[in-house]
Amino acid sequence: MKKNSNNNFNNNFIIGRNSVLEALKSNSEINFIMCSEKAPTEISKIASKKRILIKYCDHKKLDFMFKNLNHQGITAQISSRKYVEIEDIINIANKKNQKPFILILDKIQDPHNFGAIIRTAECMGVHGIIISKRRSASITPTVEKCSCGALSYIKICRVDNLNRTCEMLKKNNIWICGTDSIGENFNKLSDFFRAPIALIIGSEGEGMSSSTKKQCDVIASIPMQGKINSLNASVAAGIFMQKIAEFR
Amino acid sequence: MKKNSNNNFNNNFIIGRNSVLEALKSNSEINFIMCSEKAPTEISKIASKKRILIKYCDHKKLDFMFKNLNHQGITAQISSRKYVEIEDIINIANKKNQKPFILILDKIQDPHNFGAIIRTAECMGVHGIIISKRRSASITPTVEKCSCGALSYIKICRVDNLNRTCEMLKKNNIWICGTDSIGENFNKLSDFFRAPIALIIGSEGEGMSSSTKKQCDVIASIPMQGKINSLNASVAAGIFMQKIAEFR
Repeated sequence: MKKNSNNNFNNNFIIGRNSVLEALKSNSEINFIMCSEKAPTEISKIASKKRILIKYCDHKKLDFMFKNLNHQGITAQISSRKYVEIEDIINIANKKNQKPFILILDKIQDPHNFGAIIRTAECMGVHGIIISKRRSASITPTVEKCSCGALSYIKICRVDNLNRTCEMLKKNNIWICGTDSIGENFNKLSDFFRAPIALIIGSEGEGMSSSTKKQCDVIASIPMQGKINSLNASVAAGIFMQKIAEFR
Repeated sequence: MKKNSNNNFNNNFIIGRNSVLEALKSNSEINFIMCSEKAPTEISKIASKKRILIKYCDHKKLDFMFKNLNHQGITAQISSRKYVEIEDIINIANKKNQKPFILILDKIQDPHNFGAIIRTAECMGVHGIIISKRRSASITPTVEKCSCGALSYIKICRVDNLNRTCEMLKKNNIWICGTDSIGENFNKLSDFFRAPIALIIGSEGEGMSSSTKKQCDVIASIPMQGKINSLNASVAAGIFMQKIAEFR
């Protein structure tokens, strides 16, 4: 597999109280913190312990730096973080003595959805998230903010080709579970959900791409009633992840 | 209970292809449709059948009318819709010969969350949604858009006081199920989830208000692992609704 450790995040600032606090707690490498007013006690305590400088600046400067984003008067510059390799994600599961539970995002483009999915994944014990390099949201301050700090705890891997990724996962005895509105009732897949698994969530408009679909060992579906029969991508991802977590 | 049928929706336009299409399908009373280019075939077919006028206008006019909103070049003006009464929601369940499944939103303020929750509720067989008049998102074009047309199918009731509402529901033999990060593991509440139920989802920042909490017969909780231990409100609502739907 091609090394992709040179893909640094586009933006090395994280914004908002929660995100900064979680980054401090998680041992992310923080260069400095910028505040427009007195930093919250918990943040200033940890920062002082870790000898991280808190700079004060005008609120307008933050407004200018993070246009349209709710920075809450606080931001932290972090060392450029690197995406990890798939092997690193599998190793995280192995080290915890758990069966791998991996999330694959097939062209999720909305940063709010991406952030909310990262947040849920962290809560549901996902070992890492795989995204494709093209036509996918990457890590931006909005994603960071919507993840509510979860990004500090979960590993992201960016790949050129999801098909090759699926093949590689299968060789590692990891089952590929696709998701679609038409598929097997996910309540009947408990045996499958106990296995090492990679769950694929498709894009907001189009779902999984047809080539990714072909790689799936099973396509799971959430039983629905009603007329709309389609959920927001981050809500659907949350329901699937919770169901898998239930059996682990 | 105080009548609230005079609370018309703030805004009588719905925007975007999906929302307009679902409004047409659902028999909402549509005054006219406005398009900046040729209307999608399915929309023009139903509109012509129902003798609803399609007006053409400049794309910039729609941009001006719906600033920052992704109107996709199509909008429909609908007759001002009225909120319903709680009794109407209970009647919907009775008519379907189903045990009531009601959703109560305790000060959900983000319109994207509100829209996504409406969408999930429609998919999960919820009979109606109760919101409070104060400090809650109301129906706006953004909410309408995020609901992806589900708002045309689900009834919303707006009340002055959620406490009195809970008391009234209890008198109707409906159990009140609160939600919080600390509570009973929701996987162990299957008996409870088979009963007539009103599920309360708290606000994004603060969760349920303490007065609403006191009204609950049980507080349900999603088991989590990881460090963040908190989900986006619409994701949490989706996971709870799906779990209840599983037992109905």
